[in-house]
Amino acid sequence: MVKKPAPDSTRRSERSRRAIYGAALALVAEVGYAKATIEGIAARAGVGKQTIYRWWPSKADVLLEAFLDLGEQAAEQAAEQGAEQGARPAAEYAIPDTGDLAADLKYVLRATVDELLDPKFEAPSRALAAEGVVNEALGRQFVAKLLEPQLQLYVRRLRAAQDAGQVRPGIDPRIALELFVSPLAQRWLQRTGPISYEYTDTLVDYALHGLAPR
Amino acid sequence: MVKKPAPDSTRRSERSRRAIYGAALALVAEVGYAKATIEGIAARAGVGKQTIYRWWPSKADVLLEAFLDLGEQAAEQAAEQGAEQGARPAAEYAIPDTGDLAADLKYVLRATVDELLDPKFEAPSRALAAEGVVNEALGRQFVAKLLEPQLQLYVRRLRAAQDAGQVRPGIDPRIALELFVSPLAQRWLQRTGPISYEYTDTLVDYALHGLAPR
Repeated sequence: MVKKPAPDSTRRSERSRRAIYGAALALVAEVGYAKATIEGIAARAGVGKQTIYRWWPSKADVLLEAFLDLGEQAAEQAAEQGAEQGARPAAEYAIPDTGDLAADLKYVLRATVDELLDPKFEAPSRALAAEGVVNEALGRQFVAKLLEPQLQLYVRRLRAAQDAGQVRPGIDPRIALELFVSPLAQRWLQRTGPISYEYTDTLVDYALHGLAPR
Repeated sequence: MVKKPAPDSTRRSERSRRAIYGAALALVAEVGYAKATIEGIAARAGVGKQTIYRWWPSKADVLLEAFLDLGEQAAEQAAEQGAEQGARPAAEYAIPDTGDLAADLKYVLRATVDELLDPKFEAPSRALAAEGVVNEALGRQFVAKLLEPQLQLYVRRLRAAQDAGQVRPGIDPRIALELFVSPLAQRWLQRTGPISYEYTDTLVDYALHGLAPR
């Protein structure tokens, strides 16, 4: 998507928005979701709290958008690097379809490993995920706006693989994707084991070919 | 395991212990992990806080033991019902080995579904899990004392299946179990989808037979 040059006032707003997102993510990482306030975010971003209330109805909304923006920034960076290096498209927006399902899934999961191990992402993500576990309304917003759209990219890729005869026709793609996505999520969230490319590659192989002898 | 009758003082202690466990679980469910204090637990259990400090060095220790005890109580109940109905052993202590791996895994996961949907278990478990996400020390204790021992039961069952030729020899059982355990955990923790017997049965089928055509 090519953006038209923004007028000066819009550019100023975008700078303020990003400053507020950055302040929100940093604050929630530091003090946790429950203790982060709109006032605290405003003070950290160097804006009045009315500026925040004008754009977002609640703390949850600022934070969810801050995370969405983090994803966009990562995608923009990846696209810039990709243009230089001829790399594949950013994992956030589409899962590549080279015709090799295993390779494509491994590629995306490796990118997710990088993201999960990125310190910029770690603390605010944990703070938001932890609050979502006990705060049902926030948890459901988090899933609907952030998590499920990412999972639907896997659904689309698995459907294409079904059309190509690489996944059995009776398989429900929305459940199937959990065989490799959820183990990584649980290791990250609950620290049940180490995270590495080798680990996610293994998950993909096990999920595609099953545990039982063929 | 048959217990010898306890002397009176031990029985009194056991009653106090269970009262403290119950108070700890109820309080953490109500106010969250961060705001639950030893004083609050003591007040709710009707004991002095020194009684708690005599037995447990910290709040985390009381809570972890309260969860372990919850598991034991469930196992005792299941064993009593089992003795009446000739049922299989409690899922908490061993995974049945009938020779049919799929059936045994489905049985245990259905028991886990029941546990996750039990309101007595829900709120304190969420409070502890949420704290574990952001509090690394507690999270690691939680995994080492509560979660990993349960996962090791799956490792043992999968190894037996490997010996019986029902799981491919090269498979790492510690990773393999995550293909059906982690999706259920993520749906529960993050509310990414509904939980049912049909869902966990499907996970077992997909994990054993893979997504790719055979």
